Amino acid sequence: MSKFFNEKLNGLVPYTPGEQPTGRKYIKLNTNESPFPPSPNAVMMASMASGDCQLYPDPDCSVLVKAIAQTYGVESENVIVTNGSDEVLNFAFMAYCCEKKAIFPDLTYGFYSVFATLNGVQYCEKPLKEDFTIDINDYILDDGTVFIANPNAPTGIALELDDIEKIVKSNPDRVVVIDEAYVDFGGKSAIPLIKKYKNLLITQTFSKSRSMAGARLGFGIADKEIISDLNRIRYSTNPYNVNRMTLMAGVGAITDGEYFRKNCEQVVLNREYTTVELEKLGFELTPSKANFVFAKKKGLDGEKTYLKLKEKGILVRHFNKPRIKDYLRITIGAKEEMTALIQALKEIIEEK
Amino acid sequence: MSKFFNEKLNGLVPYTPGEQPTGRKYIKLNTNESPFPPSPNAVMMASMASGDCQLYPDPDCSVLVKAIAQTYGVESENVIVTNGSDEVLNFAFMAYCCEKKAIFPDLTYGFYSVFATLNGVQYCEKPLKEDFTIDINDYILDDGTVFIANPNAPTGIALELDDIEKIVKSNPDRVVVIDEAYVDFGGKSAIPLIKKYKNLLITQTFSKSRSMAGARLGFGIADKEIISDLNRIRYSTNPYNVNRMTLMAGVGAITDGEYFRKNCEQVVLNREYTTVELEKLGFELTPSKANFVFAKKKGLDGEKTYLKLKEKGILVRHFNKPRIKDYLRITIGAKEEMTALIQALKEIIEEK
Repeated sequence: MSKFFNEKLNGLVPYTPGEQPTGRKYIKLNTNESPFPPSPNAVMMASMASGDCQLYPDPDCSVLVKAIAQTYGVESENVIVTNGSDEVLNFAFMAYCCEKKAIFPDLTYGFYSVFATLNGVQYCEKPLKEDFTIDINDYILDDGTVFIANPNAPTGIALELDDIEKIVKSNPDRVVVIDEAYVDFGGKSAIPLIKKYKNLLITQTFSKSRSMAGARLGFGIADKEIISDLNRIRYSTNPYNVNRMTLMAGVGAITDGEYFRKNCEQVVLNREYTTVELEKLGFELTPSKANFVFAKKKGLDGEKTYLKLKEKGILVRHFNKPRIKDYLRITIGAKEEMTALIQALKEIIEEK
Repeated sequence: MSKFFNEKLNGLVPYTPGEQPTGRKYIKLNTNESPFPPSPNAVMMASMASGDCQLYPDPDCSVLVKAIAQTYGVESENVIVTNGSDEVLNFAFMAYCCEKKAIFPDLTYGFYSVFATLNGVQYCEKPLKEDFTIDINDYILDDGTVFIANPNAPTGIALELDDIEKIVKSNPDRVVVIDEAYVDFGGKSAIPLIKKYKNLLITQTFSKSRSMAGARLGFGIADKEIISDLNRIRYSTNPYNVNRMTLMAGVGAITDGEYFRKNCEQVVLNREYTTVELEKLGFELTPSKANFVFAKKKGLDGEKTYLKLKEKGILVRHFNKPRIKDYLRITIGAKEEMTALIQALKEIIEEK
C-alpha cells in the first residue's frame, strides 16, 4: 500500500476470487461456471459486434434491456444491466446502505462484506442455523438493508418464496435485495413480487445458467424507482459499463430459451448423479438447488482433500472459515467431469 | 429517486454522455470515436474469445498487462487494466482523495466532478486562463490531488512535459493523475516520468487511437505501489472487470503497432485539413493536439449551429457552459466526413 492511500479504506480486504489458472489444464469445478459454451447465437452476435467496436455502445443498452424485460414479463423500466451482477450489487450498497446498515447471513457470497467496507457501510452478519438454513426472523426483526442470496452460496439451500415475501412485506421502509445468481437450477425466482412491492430488488447473472461468466453480464429487476436510482449511480460511475460484444452476446443468449433450458436440465441431472455418488462414498450434502454441491465427509480434512484433488488435476473450492472448513464446494460440470471427480475422491479415501 | 436513496448522494448529478443515436444514421463527430474499425487482429482475437465465454476471464489480465508493459517500456507491475479509463480514474478518486481534496481545471473532462461527488470528495476547479491554457502554478501552489487531462478536453490544448514534471515534483506527498486519453494524436506522454516519481499516475484508453470505444478498455501506468493500491480497489469492486473478448481484442490491438500509427497519422492529417477549412470560414480554433477541434465563429450561436448540423445529419458536441457556449467540439472523422461537415457549415453560414 502506498503512503497516499485513503485512510478510510485501510481496513479493506479485497474479495478473493477462485483460482483461474492460466497454465495447467484442470477439470475446473471451483467457480460455478457452466460446462457448456454460450449459445451459438450469443457467440455469433458477439463476433459480429466486435467489428464495430470503434463506436461506443448504447449506454441505455435498450435492445438487451427490452429482451430481458420480455423474458421475465416486466417492463423495460424495471430492468438495469451491469458488468456482472457484482456491479448491480455494489450499486445497491451505494444506493441503499448509508443511514441503514446492511444485513446478510454469516455464510454467504463473500463479496457482500467487501462491498460494505468499500462503501463505508456498517453491516451485521446473521448466523445461519445449525443446518445452514436462514432464520427469516433475523431479517424480519432487524431494519437493515437485506442481502440474501437465493439459493444461498456456498450451501445451495433455497428459501421458499413465501418466506422471502414475509421479509419484504415486514418492513416497506428498507430495501430487500435477493441475489438470484443460482436460481435457474431449481430455485423459485421472486421476480413476480416486484409488481407488488416497491422495496424489492432482484439481481441475476448471465455467468452461470447462460454460460457467460467470461462476458461479464448481470442485471437487476425492480420497481422503476429503484431502477432509476441504480441508473443514476451507473451514469455516475461508468455509463458504458456493458461493452458492445457482451451486449449482443446477451441478446443472443436470452433469446435462445431452448438452449438455456436444456443446459439447466442437464446440470440438474448431473447434480442428482453427483449427489447420489457422493452419498455412496459417505459424504453429507446440503440440499442444493444450485449448480454446485456443498459436501463433507466425517474424518476427511477439507483443505487436504482440496489439495489432493488439485494434485490430481481437479479444482474445487475450499473456504478457510471455522464453520465450513471441512466442506468442499463442488461445481456441477459435465457428466464425465463428475465421474472423474468421484473416481478421484474414491482414490483419496482409499489412500487414507 | 426512491425514498430509500442514500441521502449523502442526493446532490449527485450523473455524467451526461454524448448522444449515441440508435435510430437515424448520422455522421457522428460528437464523442471522439475513431473513424476506423479496430485492428483486424483485435476483431479476430475477440471473435475467437467469444466461444470460451462460459469461463471467467483471468482476473490479473496477465497477457494484456504484459503486452501493454512491453509497448510502453515498463514492467507488468506498473500496469493496471480497467473497464475503460473511466474506471481507473474512479479508482484514483477512491484511493487518493479523502484526506486530500481533488483539483482540476474548470473546463475539462466532465466526469472528474461526478467522480468526486460520487465518492464524497471535496474538489476545487481551477479556472483556465483566458486562452484556455492551464496555469501550472494553480497546481504547484495547492496540495490537492491533481487531475489533468493532457491534451485537455474539450480544448485539445496540451501541456509541455516540463510543466507536468514541475507539478509532479513540486509536492511528492500527493498524487498527480495525468489523463492521456488523447495523447496519441500529437501530445507527449508522461509515462517515462513514472520511473522517477512515485506520485504520478498516467491513464490511457483504447477508445480513441485504438478504435475500441465499444469494447471498453483503459489502463493506468504508475509506480508499482500505486498500481497495487488501485488493484486493491479493483479486487474490492469487480475483479473480473475486463471481459474475455475485450481482453483479447486489447492484445490484438496493442500488438498491431503499424495499424495504430497509420490511423493516428491519418487523424492528424484530417485535423490539419479541417483546421485550415474552418479558418477559411472564419472560425477561431484552439491549437488542438487531440482527435477533435474546438471552434467558434463570431456571430454564430453555438447551440443553434449544433442543432442545424444535427438537422443536416451531422452530430457534434455542444456544452451549455457560460465560457464555452459558442464553441463546438468536433471529432476528427474520415476525410469525407470532414468535407461534409465543412460543406454543411458553409450552408449554415450562408443561410444566415
